[in-house]
Amino acid sequence: MGQPRPPTPFPAEPPPPSRRQAAVPVRRPGGRSAHVRRRVLDAVRSQLVEHGYDALSVDAVAERAGVHRTTVYRRWRDVGGLLADVLVEATGDDWRPPDTGTLDGDLVAVNREIHAALTADPPVTAALIAASFRSAQAADALRIFWIDRYDRCARLVARAAERGEIPARTDPRRLLIAATAPLYHEMVLLRTPAHPHLPERAARDAATAAHAGAFTD
Amino acid sequence: MGQPRPPTPFPAEPPPPSRRQAAVPVRRPGGRSAHVRRRVLDAVRSQLVEHGYDALSVDAVAERAGVHRTTVYRRWRDVGGLLADVLVEATGDDWRPPDTGTLDGDLVAVNREIHAALTADPPVTAALIAASFRSAQAADALRIFWIDRYDRCARLVARAAERGEIPARTDPRRLLIAATAPLYHEMVLLRTPAHPHLPERAARDAATAAHAGAFTD
Repeated sequence: MGQPRPPTPFPAEPPPPSRRQAAVPVRRPGGRSAHVRRRVLDAVRSQLVEHGYDALSVDAVAERAGVHRTTVYRRWRDVGGLLADVLVEATGDDWRPPDTGTLDGDLVAVNREIHAALTADPPVTAALIAASFRSAQAADALRIFWIDRYDRCARLVARAAERGEIPARTDPRRLLIAATAPLYHEMVLLRTPAHPHLPERAARDAATAAHAGAFTD
Repeated sequence: MGQPRPPTPFPAEPPPPSRRQAAVPVRRPGGRSAHVRRRVLDAVRSQLVEHGYDALSVDAVAERAGVHRTTVYRRWRDVGGLLADVLVEATGDDWRPPDTGTLDGDLVAVNREIHAALTADPPVTAALIAASFRSAQAADALRIFWIDRYDRCARLVARAAERGEIPARTDPRRLLIAATAPLYHEMVLLRTPAHPHLPERAARDAATAAHAGAFTD
């Protein structure tokens, strides 16, 4: 038991199995079903990262998880269902954006989490983004995951407005997209070698824009 | 031979075959080879857009182009070579960023071209981006294509600095990424339904940041 479940970094990095296991008691009601789900979703992530989307099948995941294949077919149906559930699980955490006391600081902290997720080893986040180009279900689930994350981050924009740092009518989503999009563009699409200053610069450039009244019309 | 080759929109929309054909005289030296290349690359784009990456093979492209398969194997070797050459061809155009007289106007114009490319029918650009997650050669070629486009756009940042609109030490690439990344993030990764104001807003928000001294440290 011990430690609470660690917050999931933005966008979608699962907590390490040992700590996650400690957070879900085996004997509680639904424990067996939750245990199966955890093993299956761990197997999906491992299979995806180690062998790629083409090696992802219900049978391969069932074998890897040590779960009967009919159980997997019945509950998740196909690869799309498995990938979508990985993202549904990630959406179900208690992640909250950091509160550093300034808009700059909050955006830098969020961007550092995104940067960590995009450079993580194993590269689960990168593999899920790549999979979203193969599976419409994964693409939908990823979109919902991101919408949820940006919704949660809206509070950091509201705090900045309450402090009088930025205009009250600043559109939170537009500001958050401006702060984070350069990371995704550079690291996922342009595949630029990770630049150590990228998270800070993108965050501060967006904060500068917000201070100057951008994201308001 | 009539019309000059039309500029390629940003990021990678091929000109229509009829106009392109007019720009490359059939009788000039190398005309036959250029003609084969054009037919093969048209076939790559059509096959990719209509049937997806999984249906893309040297044989399928050769048949579609009406070119002998050994010609395609010898010159392009494999699917990665074919995709890379589609992007090399796109990089070889004479595209220049628009000159509207203001930074806002120039960035809006660039973003409108990106928006048009990402919503084009057939969706060649979207299909090439998706293919970059399957083929390392396509990913490399796409990166080189984008680097070239951002390099060409640096002149619009230099013009703004010369006019005194923004600090002379503004980093062109950072400003251009800030202006364009929200479009790619929303349309390619988040798959948000195209918002009519997105190109203008992202461009103007980045320009506001630049006017306020962002992108300089």
